[in-house]
Amino acid sequence: MSFPSDRHEYEQRDNRTMKLATLKAGGRDGTLVVVSRDLQHCVEVPEIAGTLQSALDNWSTTEPQLKEVYSSLNSGECAGARAFDVEACHSPLPRAYQWADGSAYINHVELVRKARGAELPPSFHTDPLMYQGGSDSFITPRDNVVASKEWGIDFEAEVTVVTDDVPFGATPEQCADKIRLIMLVNDVSLRGLIPGELAKGFGFFQSKPASAFSPVAVTPDELGDAWKDSKVHLPLQVHLNDKLFGKPQAGVDMTFDFSQLVAHVAKTRELCAGSIVGSGTVSNKQGDLFGSSIDNGGVGYCCLAEVRMYETIEQGKPKTAFMDYGDRVKIEMFDADGQSVFGSIENEVVAPS
Amino acid sequence: MSFPSDRHEYEQRDNRTMKLATLKAGGRDGTLVVVSRDLQHCVEVPEIAGTLQSALDNWSTTEPQLKEVYSSLNSGECAGARAFDVEACHSPLPRAYQWADGSAYINHVELVRKARGAELPPSFHTDPLMYQGGSDSFITPRDNVVASKEWGIDFEAEVTVVTDDVPFGATPEQCADKIRLIMLVNDVSLRGLIPGELAKGFGFFQSKPASAFSPVAVTPDELGDAWKDSKVHLPLQVHLNDKLFGKPQAGVDMTFDFSQLVAHVAKTRELCAGSIVGSGTVSNKQGDLFGSSIDNGGVGYCCLAEVRMYETIEQGKPKTAFMDYGDRVKIEMFDADGQSVFGSIENEVVAPS
Repeated sequence: MSFPSDRHEYEQRDNRTMKLATLKAGGRDGTLVVVSRDLQHCVEVPEIAGTLQSALDNWSTTEPQLKEVYSSLNSGECAGARAFDVEACHSPLPRAYQWADGSAYINHVELVRKARGAELPPSFHTDPLMYQGGSDSFITPRDNVVASKEWGIDFEAEVTVVTDDVPFGATPEQCADKIRLIMLVNDVSLRGLIPGELAKGFGFFQSKPASAFSPVAVTPDELGDAWKDSKVHLPLQVHLNDKLFGKPQAGVDMTFDFSQLVAHVAKTRELCAGSIVGSGTVSNKQGDLFGSSIDNGGVGYCCLAEVRMYETIEQGKPKTAFMDYGDRVKIEMFDADGQSVFGSIENEVVAPS
Repeated sequence: MSFPSDRHEYEQRDNRTMKLATLKAGGRDGTLVVVSRDLQHCVEVPEIAGTLQSALDNWSTTEPQLKEVYSSLNSGECAGARAFDVEACHSPLPRAYQWADGSAYINHVELVRKARGAELPPSFHTDPLMYQGGSDSFITPRDNVVASKEWGIDFEAEVTVVTDDVPFGATPEQCADKIRLIMLVNDVSLRGLIPGELAKGFGFFQSKPASAFSPVAVTPDELGDAWKDSKVHLPLQVHLNDKLFGKPQAGVDMTFDFSQLVAHVAKTRELCAGSIVGSGTVSNKQGDLFGSSIDNGGVGYCCLAEVRMYETIEQGKPKTAFMDYGDRVKIEMFDADGQSVFGSIENEVVAPS
């Protein structure tokens, strides 16, 4: 992201953009803060909204006020500003009324099917896959993932949006105007529990435990040119135990953009402000094997299941293991200037006590 | 439900029980009211909690205070009491952080399978079916169901519970102690969209639009002897266009009780206070055909899909149609004295505008 050199232009841009976070302190929904563009400072805004959900519930009123605070925070003129500490953050919405996760990168789905010798139904290119996730108690961006390793623990690095109210039957064009914030997510998946659950026919449930979101949520305009056609055109970076594991472009191979994903939700019901809609695991195709690792010169992956499927196609069986206790995943996105946009999600796997 | 004749015993009972509702007025989460046992009077309690979610967030503090109000309301000594108007009610939680719906009446599942000549997997008797429902914007108990009749509109009459916080990995015994409230629900289903969605493997999504809950939520003890072993031992009454359609016993043929259903949710994650967990369509087996209608002397059904499946088994094809525009469903439960416990859910189907 390039910063305008002209002060007037800079201020104009500030008036369209914003970064927000939620501190853990203050109750079940935490405390809303406005965060500076460089993630160095933040300020509480109790006179505007105490929580992010409250801000979203009254967005037409709160948005311009929050953006004024953001502008003054970036120019170093904000009273009450203090150091921004990611460790003190909860997920921007510690609990939400909706978490609907798509699977918009069809390469991810194609890879899964290919590994078991199945073809992709043609409808998968026109009708999005989506599941309803649990949203009552997300973990924080730096929390441990508590799960038994027998369950086949995997991360899934994704991009998500937060919507305003969306009416029943809204078109993709109408939905594009209802996207208020963008976040990243680690959509933790328990691969060992998925086959049994899908065989029952009711979709994922126990196989999708609590997700962790990025510390910071940003308005679409904050991304500048990187937000286009309801997609984020930046690489999503994943490290596993400090080693680069994936850096696919989130704007590439996204079969359904966010306006289409939100419209999929709205087909038979309205959405309430604060609904989170996810992209599914970001995945770039990169050739006939539907992917390639960083070590092989590719862009790598955003989940372990994909490299295991690549291995299955290439070598007949997976060799990469799922996460063990002590394994750590880090998910982050940088703009063109190398600035972390959302702060990082960093989760370590620990055994249930 | 029999009322104790002794005044002291009556007061003791009041101290254990309560009925609550949410008026639409007052914002997105409405306004909490305590409702008298006979559903004739109610009173706002802003000094205790403004909304039901807020009461549930602080249950150990709010519960005894709300029960005192309930006691004074029932004895006619409550200042500020006014007539209780069901038309003014929203669902007790107009939006919730979780709506996880089981399918605990295995007869319902067995009937579906039987109609298509499939056997029931043995695991279905030990491992509950459950899906994650949308919870961001429920309709009110008397709202219209807005849907295209091409989607195959059906009602599903069910019992639900509302939990307190439930820790990760809680046992059924521990979960039984975390059940705070009981409600009814019309879990609207779009049967025509289900086969396509289930074929995609991600479970229900567009086929499950917004649900409507009963106007009143009650504490388990309010049911007296009818709440036993984490089941409600009363008939659930369903009318379709003013004709009795079903009256199955909710305590009969419930393969998994509510403590087991909540424990199923808690296996891989904690639950936040205010989580709603549903029973699935109430269904009694009544013989080899897995059901019988009221006209045939049976207890009838809690959804149209079941009678259609019965017809398929008996006659080779369904003859009962799904809901048309103008069709009305009414769902209610009465205690042994004929008192409506939760008030009635009454929804009419209308076409999208």
